[in-house]
Amino acid sequence: MSGNTFGTLFTVTTFGESHGKALGCVIDGCPAGIEIDQEFINSEMARRRPGLGNIGTGRKENDDVKILSGVFEGKSTGTPIMMIVFNESPKSSDYDDIKDIFRPSHADYTYYKKYGIRDYRGGGRASGRETLCRVAAGSIAKLVLKKMNIKIISAVREVKGIRCSYFTPPFVPPLYTASKEHDEEIIKLIENTRNDGDSIGGVIETHISGCPAGLGEPVFDKLDATISHAVMSIGAVKGIEFGSGYRSTLLYGSQNNDQMDKEGFITNNAGGILGGISNGDEIIFSCFVKPTPSIYKEQKTLSIDNEERTIKIKGRHDPVILFRVLPVIEAMSAIALLDALLVAGCYE
Amino acid sequence: MSGNTFGTLFTVTTFGESHGKALGCVIDGCPAGIEIDQEFINSEMARRRPGLGNIGTGRKENDDVKILSGVFEGKSTGTPIMMIVFNESPKSSDYDDIKDIFRPSHADYTYYKKYGIRDYRGGGRASGRETLCRVAAGSIAKLVLKKMNIKIISAVREVKGIRCSYFTPPFVPPLYTASKEHDEEIIKLIENTRNDGDSIGGVIETHISGCPAGLGEPVFDKLDATISHAVMSIGAVKGIEFGSGYRSTLLYGSQNNDQMDKEGFITNNAGGILGGISNGDEIIFSCFVKPTPSIYKEQKTLSIDNEERTIKIKGRHDPVILFRVLPVIEAMSAIALLDALLVAGCYE
Amino acid sequence: MSGNTFGTLFTVTTFGESHGKALGCVIDGCPAGIEIDQEFINSEMARRRPGLGNIGTGRKENDDVKILSGVFEGKSTGTPIMMIVFNESPKSSDYDDIKDIFRPSHADYTYYKKYGIRDYRGGGRASGRETLCRVAAGSIAKLVLKKMNIKIISAVREVKGIRCSYFTPPFVPPLYTASKEHDEEIIKLIENTRNDGDSIGGVIETHISGCPAGLGEPVFDKLDATISHAVMSIGAVKGIEFGSGYRSTLLYGSQNNDQMDKEGFITNNAGGILGGISNGDEIIFSCFVKPTPSIYKEQKTLSIDNEERTIKIKGRHDPVILFRVLPVIEAMSAIALLDALLVAGCYE
Amino acid sequence: MSGNTFGTLFTVTTFGESHGKALGCVIDGCPAGIEIDQEFINSEMARRRPGLGNIGTGRKENDDVKILSGVFEGKSTGTPIMMIVFNESPKSSDYDDIKDIFRPSHADYTYYKKYGIRDYRGGGRASGRETLCRVAAGSIAKLVLKKMNIKIISAVREVKGIRCSYFTPPFVPPLYTASKEHDEEIIKLIENTRNDGDSIGGVIETHISGCPAGLGEPVFDKLDATISHAVMSIGAVKGIEFGSGYRSTLLYGSQNNDQMDKEGFITNNAGGILGGISNGDEIIFSCFVKPTPSIYKEQKTLSIDNEERTIKIKGRHDPVILFRVLPVIEAMSAIALLDALLVAGCYE
Repeated sequence: MSGNTFGTLFTVTTFGESHGKALGCVIDGCPAGIEIDQEFINSEMARRRPGLGNIGTGRKENDDVKILSGVFEGKSTGTPIMMIVFNESPKSSDYDDIKDIFRPSHADYTYYKKYGIRDYRGGGRASGRETLCRVAAGSIAKLVLKKMNIKIISAVREVKGIRCSYFTPPFVPPLYTASKEHDEEIIKLIENTRNDGDSIGGVIETHISGCPAGLGEPVFDKLDATISHAVMSIGAVKGIEFGSGYRSTLLYGSQNNDQMDKEGFITNNAGGILGGISNGDEIIFSCFVKPTPSIYKEQKTLSIDNEERTIKIKGRHDPVILFRVLPVIEAMSAIALLDALLVAGCYE
Repeated sequence: MSGNTFGTLFTVTTFGESHGKALGCVIDGCPAGIEIDQEFINSEMARRRPGLGNIGTGRKENDDVKILSGVFEGKSTGTPIMMIVFNESPKSSDYDDIKDIFRPSHADYTYYKKYGIRDYRGGGRASGRETLCRVAAGSIAKLVLKKMNIKIISAVREVKGIRCSYFTPPFVPPLYTASKEHDEEIIKLIENTRNDGDSIGGVIETHISGCPAGLGEPVFDKLDATISHAVMSIGAVKGIEFGSGYRSTLLYGSQNNDQMDKEGFITNNAGGILGGISNGDEIIFSCFVKPTPSIYKEQKTLSIDNEERTIKIKGRHDPVILFRVLPVIEAMSAIALLDALLVAGCYE
Repeated sequence: MSGNTFGTLFTVTTFGESHGKALGCVIDGCPAGIEIDQEFINSEMARRRPGLGNIGTGRKENDDVKILSGVFEGKSTGTPIMMIVFNESPKSSDYDDIKDIFRPSHADYTYYKKYGIRDYRGGGRASGRETLCRVAAGSIAKLVLKKMNIKIISAVREVKGIRCSYFTPPFVPPLYTASKEHDEEIIKLIENTRNDGDSIGGVIETHISGCPAGLGEPVFDKLDATISHAVMSIGAVKGIEFGSGYRSTLLYGSQNNDQMDKEGFITNNAGGILGGISNGDEIIFSCFVKPTPSIYKEQKTLSIDNEERTIKIKGRHDPVILFRVLPVIEAMSAIALLDALLVAGCYE
Repeated sequence: MSGNTFGTLFTVTTFGESHGKALGCVIDGCPAGIEIDQEFINSEMARRRPGLGNIGTGRKENDDVKILSGVFEGKSTGTPIMMIVFNESPKSSDYDDIKDIFRPSHADYTYYKKYGIRDYRGGGRASGRETLCRVAAGSIAKLVLKKMNIKIISAVREVKGIRCSYFTPPFVPPLYTASKEHDEEIIKLIENTRNDGDSIGGVIETHISGCPAGLGEPVFDKLDATISHAVMSIGAVKGIEFGSGYRSTLLYGSQNNDQMDKEGFITNNAGGILGGISNGDEIIFSCFVKPTPSIYKEQKTLSIDNEERTIKIKGRHDPVILFRVLPVIEAMSAIALLDALLVAGCYE
């Protein structure tokens, strides 16, 4: 595959550029007979929308998803579900000055090197706007998982080192913090960062409950490996760890091992996966989200003619995209999990 | 795929159980005309061998790799290369007492739940011995990458929190530490851990140099995503991060962004990958390796009849497998990278 | 994959139902920098359009293809090309009487058995209208192949047993016969068939010239195997043969073997493929196209409640779809061939 | 994939050259708990063995299959099953004179063009001996299908135009003819052909019974398309047709359509597949097998230095490989069918 399709039996193929005519996805392998709840889809889309109060960008984007195939009388038919969002008269002129210049830590440079041509408007294919297709597809996956009582929830566990000590739902917008202890401090940090024209990142923790034992295929398609593939394909995610993750390297085996008694696993340092196969316990992983590269400070860079330049990025950008990455991580987890379910023959 | 094959154009399929008749791999898609240097293959295999002085297990395993197809007059022919290691009279009786019991934090439980049947001898398919196939296949991938002057080197960056401040080759056995500052302390820690019948883990850092810009496919097969898939499929690896990784979440965007001047990238917080595509800089990532679950301390667990039991694992096990995981990480990186090269049409 | 994607590096994913909102495809892996000639695309689409004079149905369908992504300033960017055709107010009421009944030799029965739900309007996903996505995608593949001077041409070789003795381009609409010897007889046959409310089929022969040696992968992805997969996935095609095909079974090896001299192959009974790999000669194959199942005669069938019924199909249907299948065969050949080119690393 | 793996969930990867050290396969995705009946496997292997009385070559080949992984206490464990046949001191010297010369209608020329290097001994990877891996893997697939009461049987329907009018089991070695009417004539033809140093081909018909409705995925992975892929990947097979196949092009739609009544389908011109999905009726297809290219007559060809040469092939070759291709067609059908079953979620 040339990279724009994910999955083996439940596959998602996405298309579209930030300032092109439309973005969307084709979902293949969705079981037949699933009620396609448009309101649920809309609510998922709303979660990744920018402009959430004073912490986001003031930018407005259309993300009104239409389904053009695969659904008949409200139910999936087993054939490809095509979902599309049309772009409304994008303001591409904002990007005219970056036509010939590479924005630092964006994909401008690498797309140019790879293809020799790039749609620079709004970042083209490499724009974060691409992730709306993932959330759309993920919402369909979630509808299927719901039927099996599998739930995926994520929370912001850390913002630039400020760490929530608990993971206690519900996790509410706009911060989605794992606990509310530090919300004030976090909001202040975001405001200051915005005022400085800078950006910050953090850590998102995800829990999947209700997942049966037996998902994940040895040797190379271990469940943690395929979830990692799915989640690490999100532009802003720079790392992932399962269960005790990095912390396991600080423990003795006798501390990190999960012993069992009649109630099941006594601890869950494994993050719900043993030998790459789900063990029936909660699947737990964390993602490291870097600060968004779009900042208003002056930076050094090169032009496509290899000349040194400085750049100050224009337009409206979030000082922190962590909150918007959260539903994307959930979506990719849902897609990877449903695919694993179908491959393992566990879907009923 | 049912999980035992990795790759799109350069594919590796592995087979074999710890105490079965043989383990091995079939490599498909290796370019023709590559000199298959058996000595290099042997030296790679030697790197993952147990029993390295006083830090490893005293166990001896055969890992003598034979090539049974795909090579003619010393060169690859473009057809499948089959590599095999025969098991020599394994001492399976050691495992008789775990026939009906699940070893904590091993895959015993999940294989049983998934398949309803398992080859319990030595961990069967889920044994660490499976990784010798990866190293064998990786050695072929490395031979191809060498021709393109691409080099993969790894070092142990941390052992149970003891962190090397530098990453300065060469990295020598048996510790492969990134710097020699703490070697004494580390050896003492290992000895104490062994005496306690316990185990420890650590962090391995990998650098890939000489890689051209342009590898990795948008959107889902970003190079960091496919390397993550490859490396996270190693049993002991519980996390991965690229470039500044978790540390990026502590920085401002203005600190984390990699600016450019005529010499190229001024910093490399991205770890050599932008938007999922290699940027020509060094590719850098770190893996979190958990303490090996095989410890000699008594642990609580269940039998296959769901009865509470205690277990004390027998046989010879490494108190730390970090050093043996290192060549496996390199191997999986080599396999993923060569596949990306071929998919991107960059192999010449 | 769940069946709606074809290819390894050049992949085509299609979606859409006959009377749904739209049909289309996502093409992934198209090389960057290809001039996307909309006129050529339109001309390809026109070739499969129904209503060609007195031999086709009088039905009018919209097949106006729009490209919504992957093309920037007239050129492919290497990212997914999304092509879409919107359905215009389909007259689905025609299909109300087949809501609960299976049309003989259509896919109504099998979709119902497989999914338990079906979009019966116009045949839903199983409609021949689905092939317009293949022609759209194939036109992109042809644009890439053109750059490498690879040409695919097809002609109608037989109509209900009336066989053209020559294969002499150009092949012109509406009959596209391989030679004009029998055109009159064929037209008369079609008219009579239409008057009888019946249908007929025939044989289409395809020649691919300019194809380099070396395409096709041993053992399972032989070029004839992947072309067969591609072409046999067209609903109306019931058989395929390469080179001398069935006729080879009537010959001695000494007659069927293609000997060589300095000019190259003296004969081409192999159809340009040896051991599954293109030999540089013309690739030649023939497809057997069955009579279209939509006929106006009364037929016995079952309802979804398993009751015996009779049916007389309404609406406008071609008495022979052979001519419309021809561009679809070319399209699938182009897609399979371009994919083989990329996989073999032969695209420049 | 680089061509040596077939399948999505039930995958077969083969390796080995005619005169290399071994040939074999790795089967991934075999359901756990299947009794692996070695005698059945041996009996399948015996069916493709050369040297069947006076109609075959006098050549003896080892085809003693050993299973080296994936089976524990006689049952499949769900992990890869590796099957291997070791070559015994092959007499490669027979092939010294073809080292620098291309045998007509063999793959010598195309492998050389593709790879620039080839293992010429016995045809290397392109030898018919490769098919023993298919039969081995197919025997495992058949064991799984048996459990579901799915049966695959094939017979020789035509030998160089001599056609059996019936298809009446049992089909017995060495001729496996569909009816015994013409056996004498066929044996005489084979003897004469052998005496002339020539070769002949024929048609094999395959019936699959007991297959549930619902296998095959729209649009590109129609069951007839994937079976075609599987079967057309056998070197000697030059064509395939389903149900009435070519004959359908001679019929009116009203004759070719399969009407239904309470008993089911009244006829089976579709060959058990509608819209690419199995309809529960017998799946029927025919394969066109060319005369084997290895003949003893003098033929014109080229050397690798592009010089004109003549060649007379030495060694022992079958004048007709039709009978040996038969079990290979069954094997590939079994593999494709089981894969389709698993993909469709129909395996229990």
